[in-house]
Amino acid sequence: MYDKRHIMDSLKDLNERHLKFVTDRNWQQHQSPKNLSMALTAEVGELIEHFQWLTVEESWKVNGKKKEAVAEEMADVLIYLTRMAGELDIDLVAAAHEKCERNERKYPVEEFQDGYKRPHEHKDKDKY
Amino acid sequence: MYDKRHIMDSLKDLNERHLKFVTDRNWQQHQSPKNLSMALTAEVGELIEHFQWLTVEESWKVNGKKKEAVAEEMADVLIYLTRMAGELDIDLVAAAHEKCERNERKYPVEEFQDGYKRPHEHKDKDKY
Amino acid sequence: MYDKRHIMDSLKDLNERHLKFVTDRNWQQHQSPKNLSMALTAEVGELIEHFQWLTVEESWKVNGKKKEAVAEEMADVLIYLTRMAGELDIDLVAAAHEKCERNERKYPVEEFQDGYKRPHEHKDKDKY
Amino acid sequence: MYDKRHIMDSLKDLNERHLKFVTDRNWQQHQSPKNLSMALTAEVGELIEHFQWLTVEESWKVNGKKKEAVAEEMADVLIYLTRMAGELDIDLVAAAHEKCERNERKYPVEEFQDGYKRPHEHKDKDKY
Repeated sequence: MYDKRHIMDSLKDLNERHLKFVTDRNWQQHQSPKNLSMALTAEVGELIEHFQWLTVEESWKVNGKKKEAVAEEMADVLIYLTRMAGELDIDLVAAAHEKCERNERKYPVEEFQDGYKRPHEHKDKDKY
Repeated sequence: MYDKRHIMDSLKDLNERHLKFVTDRNWQQHQSPKNLSMALTAEVGELIEHFQWLTVEESWKVNGKKKEAVAEEMADVLIYLTRMAGELDIDLVAAAHEKCERNERKYPVEEFQDGYKRPHEHKDKDKY
Repeated sequence: MYDKRHIMDSLKDLNERHLKFVTDRNWQQHQSPKNLSMALTAEVGELIEHFQWLTVEESWKVNGKKKEAVAEEMADVLIYLTRMAGELDIDLVAAAHEKCERNERKYPVEEFQDGYKRPHEHKDKDKY
Repeated sequence: MYDKRHIMDSLKDLNERHLKFVTDRNWQQHQSPKNLSMALTAEVGELIEHFQWLTVEESWKVNGKKKEAVAEEMADVLIYLTRMAGELDIDLVAAAHEKCERNERKYPVEEFQDGYKRPHEHKDKDKY
């Protein structure tokens, strides 16, 4: 089990700052989880737009103005994601560690020793 | 300016754990920023699906099994977002604070005192 | 079975026009299904942005400049969707009719006589 | 100008069939443009998932079961897109032709004779 004592520190600061920004402008009433899931999607759309015509190799070399723009879109995603977690009272980092645990069990290391197999090429004997 | 000393702690743990999971399975080669932006989008799609037919009010009351499923999708978004930040060497929390600063300037508190105006109803005199 | 004789007419015109636009600019090389799925996502992100802070009721009353902007984003989605179908040699309208058939069987009319039940409130006895 | 006489035929059939399916189940009340934009996004998320770990080259060679699954997701996108156009009284094909016209003017053929330049590498002198 992940030790929860240390989680939600840098994200906690961010959450608090952003929540103050939102409540100062009376926006919390508009920030239902439904609406926030839409805002999150719109930001992800802006993020993916930066990569749509790039080759895989180019995508690793993004820099300068483009990298700044990418960082800004990723920031927006993080802001809306933590905002949404706040409205739903979900501990995002704890949930992420729980997901890591499930993934660690689901994709046993031994099956991926050949060096190229991707997640979707994994045969789950049961269902999945 | 945001003091960077305290950032990237809970997220740092998560990043390290997930990166180990990925490298143990030889998956880093597939995790270009381009591909990760797609994986991120797919997870956001799964998240929004939970809210598409709900009313705004119902979306605030999500609980039980549905809340767990929502938390899992949000965890996936966080995992891919931090993974992508890692590949691009972007400090996600610092970028989020910089974005908060820009937003705080862009949407002056005084303009939103009436109690209902939403972000898109804000008239930016210049460009925007 | 859906009679395929009449399908792909208005969409056929659109496809041909857009494909000429693309090939005239040497862009087909960049328009892999992978890249097109990203472009499609980016356009859907722009579309959803118009609706994120609207109430459900407001979303039905979109008009004027906003309606024009919405129509343009929807047009972009259709253009990339048909372009992607072209690259993959998929008959989009036939696929849609096949999906309609599956949906008609999957959600029996009798189960939705009560007047409010939504798709996700449907109990599929078997799998689903 | 595009001649509107011939548009909305194959899509018209599809629209009518799907609208009947929806009204027979009392679902139109849930299908606001807001909700439909979310459903559209969720389907695009399922579509992009099929391509996220593929190379660009693999994405062109999708076939068999995977191609069928891709076709089904694309069908879902088309169904929700036309459904949304119906709720908003937008002529989707006409809007797409108008967009084609704007694109044809915006990206002059002469600028793309070198054989590799992509849309985002186009310098628009004015705004954009």
